Amino acid sequence: MIADAERKLGSKAVITDPKDIEPWVSDWRGRVHGASPAILAPGSTQDVVEIVKLAATHRVPLVPQGGNTGMVAGATPPADGSALLLSMRRMNRIRSISADDRLAVAEAGVVLATMHEAAHDIGMRFPLTIGSRGSCTIGGLTSTNAGGTQVLKFGMMRSLIAGLEAVLPDGSVHSGLSGLKKDNRGYSLDQLLIGAEGTLGVITAVALRLVPAVAARAVVWAGVDSPQKALELLRFLEARTNAVEGFELVPDDSLQLVLKHIPGTRPPLGGDHPWNVLIEATTDDPAADINAEVERLLAAALEAKLISDAVIASNEAQAEAFWRIRDAISEAERAEGQTLAHDISVPVADMPRFIVEASKDVEARFPGVIASAFGHLGDGNVHFHVRAASHASPDWYETEGEKITQMVDDLATAAGGSISAEHGIGQLKRDEFERLAPPGRIHALQAIKHALDPEGIMNPGKLVP
Amino acid sequence: MIADAERKLGSKAVITDPKDIEPWVSDWRGRVHGASPAILAPGSTQDVVEIVKLAATHRVPLVPQGGNTGMVAGATPPADGSALLLSMRRMNRIRSISADDRLAVAEAGVVLATMHEAAHDIGMRFPLTIGSRGSCTIGGLTSTNAGGTQVLKFGMMRSLIAGLEAVLPDGSVHSGLSGLKKDNRGYSLDQLLIGAEGTLGVITAVALRLVPAVAARAVVWAGVDSPQKALELLRFLEARTNAVEGFELVPDDSLQLVLKHIPGTRPPLGGDHPWNVLIEATTDDPAADINAEVERLLAAALEAKLISDAVIASNEAQAEAFWRIRDAISEAERAEGQTLAHDISVPVADMPRFIVEASKDVEARFPGVIASAFGHLGDGNVHFHVRAASHASPDWYETEGEKITQMVDDLATAAGGSISAEHGIGQLKRDEFERLAPPGRIHALQAIKHALDPEGIMNPGKLVP
Repeated sequence: MIADAERKLGSKAVITDPKDIEPWVSDWRGRVHGASPAILAPGSTQDVVEIVKLAATHRVPLVPQGGNTGMVAGATPPADGSALLLSMRRMNRIRSISADDRLAVAEAGVVLATMHEAAHDIGMRFPLTIGSRGSCTIGGLTSTNAGGTQVLKFGMMRSLIAGLEAVLPDGSVHSGLSGLKKDNRGYSLDQLLIGAEGTLGVITAVALRLVPAVAARAVVWAGVDSPQKALELLRFLEARTNAVEGFELVPDDSLQLVLKHIPGTRPPLGGDHPWNVLIEATTDDPAADINAEVERLLAAALEAKLISDAVIASNEAQAEAFWRIRDAISEAERAEGQTLAHDISVPVADMPRFIVEASKDVEARFPGVIASAFGHLGDGNVHFHVRAASHASPDWYETEGEKITQMVDDLATAAGGSISAEHGIGQLKRDEFERLAPPGRIHALQAIKHALDPEGIMNPGKLVP
Repeated sequence: MIADAERKLGSKAVITDPKDIEPWVSDWRGRVHGASPAILAPGSTQDVVEIVKLAATHRVPLVPQGGNTGMVAGATPPADGSALLLSMRRMNRIRSISADDRLAVAEAGVVLATMHEAAHDIGMRFPLTIGSRGSCTIGGLTSTNAGGTQVLKFGMMRSLIAGLEAVLPDGSVHSGLSGLKKDNRGYSLDQLLIGAEGTLGVITAVALRLVPAVAARAVVWAGVDSPQKALELLRFLEARTNAVEGFELVPDDSLQLVLKHIPGTRPPLGGDHPWNVLIEATTDDPAADINAEVERLLAAALEAKLISDAVIASNEAQAEAFWRIRDAISEAERAEGQTLAHDISVPVADMPRFIVEASKDVEARFPGVIASAFGHLGDGNVHFHVRAASHASPDWYETEGEKITQMVDDLATAAGGSISAEHGIGQLKRDEFERLAPPGRIHALQAIKHALDPEGIMNPGKLVP
């Protein structure tokens, strides 16, 4: 197959030097290590068609990969070297972009930060953003239906996609790039491929919705008494303005860890606040005074006893400093010791109760651990992290991790929630997915997978139990 | 199977009197006539499970039906009486509704107008609306991914669904009603079932997003020189306000037909205008003066020579009169003579050119006919209607219809568009869908259908060629 691919696509599209392969066969967190004899790097949709046809002929599985920044090892090949990596990074053209149409067509390998810049250059904005924006790709974001910090206003990747192009496992090309606003011609293959983690086909290009550029933003740090108060604050704001696009919950525990481990960070507020929220409000109207609007709303919220104190960043540097605290929580936790991360969601209204009760339950059953939930409260999605006790053994993660994760997943499931709000299933959550999903759902997913990929060449071993 | 169903579900759930069946076996336009020995009318999701299991055992196909207001005979049973109608109209409870959560859970049989009222009663709004709102149901709207006149701002049904509950062909229940904002656990069955026209399962309930109630609206009738000017006007407005939620193109030809045939209608503007647009702008802010804002924008549009004249409805009665003109176009056409309707979409930016050129092409090839396009310009979706010449024979529809429709569909396809923007495929568009869709797409749809419904019990003969 490798020799055939080289003959068909040229040597530029086939990487076989182990030194060039090595950085891409493990997930970026170094948890899962795979192997692959080659990386195929198509330069065009037609190249992908050829590769998929060769893979079907030779029955060689393909593992599509973008920036390799996923959280569940969904783009990591199996360790036995039986699969080939399919790097989409060479397909990095923005095929078209238009402020009038509010659309851009980006190939799968376009890096998110590049997309941000291209939109900015025409006075528009692609509003989805995540921490790995400097290396994650449009194809990967689409295949994982990525989320991030601005979901509250603009939705997840699914909401920002007007259509996509993909090569299906039979080598046919699905062309959904014309960006039709209305099209009711049968099952939506676009929607099926979004979040399919490369198991149903290879996404080669995506039509993305753009929104007007931000004219100004106000970034707020506020102290609140409880997650319930935080949610009440969010609803108070949402009833009065459409400007809120980020609303992140930060427990005092997380703030203290950041202040302890991350150089240059300072507490935004004086006094003690058991919980904090980081709020970003934006406007695309250059005539609007967003700071004045937010100040007025915060005064009313203080009056209504929803917040204990608040500060609006007085300049961009301070705004960035507030976000730095939020973004550094995971880093600070790693510096503190062993941490188990869980990316869960429950219905928004139930999240305050869930945070308080699930934390208590987990800490009671595993004495010494500290449960800490932070993140996207307005989306009903928190990163529910559990830290080892200070006296924990070095192999705590291996010995206790599975039990703790199962307990957190059980609690989320019992609350009607999801064990994977943003990160997907990949390899790492497949067992838990199978354990907790209704059998009818697993059966339906298996049937769809087998129907579209009967040879099992598209990222086998991922997502579908 | 009918006797078994009666035993399991009780006599209330099984209708066998031909008089009670007769109104439901033809599509509402009277184009397609089917037959069925019984209507099954489940009262609960568990009833639907029992029915689906019986259907699988007896290999009897089911034809799910809501208000029977579809445009493509997707809910009409085959004429040989081999299938049973599955009426969802008894499942008409609104299970929950919350202004705080901005969510309602409605059973499949809830009528759209009832949903509008329920949202209104709690100070909220379910923003999708179509002409048949008094009888169409939430289940039907979901299964057909319905559109309507407010899509510009709120999207089609797909955008307004937070999750759904459905009985799959194997009798398992897919439960997606918890309204999670983020959930990345594999392929989205919700998205797959939306627009599947009952061919992959029976939708039993839907979680719907609500938006704040309208505080005030401004309804405008404006004269423009061309579809191109109309689109420029829309973009001019969209760059300056978020208030526009309806933007309907009405050619003078359609206006004149309405004035001729519909009693009590009057021209909104003096003077001759080859094209008109009906604009609805709304605000949910009781403090905003929407009329003043719209007046200011129209003055600027007049200045910029985008419009030739415009009038803002001075009261609700006049606003309704403007909408009455738009809504009565099809009725006026029917009064005038034989008309072929086509529900097509092309990319928004290309729509002005398409309307002008396609009309010219069709009229040139079929001398005497009049092509007239009206509707949702801002969505790239017009109803492209072709009227018979005054001297046409009474069987024009039968003799010429297919050729004309094929020409219109060819033109839409060549423009990268869709032969079904809103109405779906059902029975009536299946041949054209098969003729014009890429074989890879047809194959993928057939594979998915067969995978989830191997016995072919779910609405066979619809949608999938």
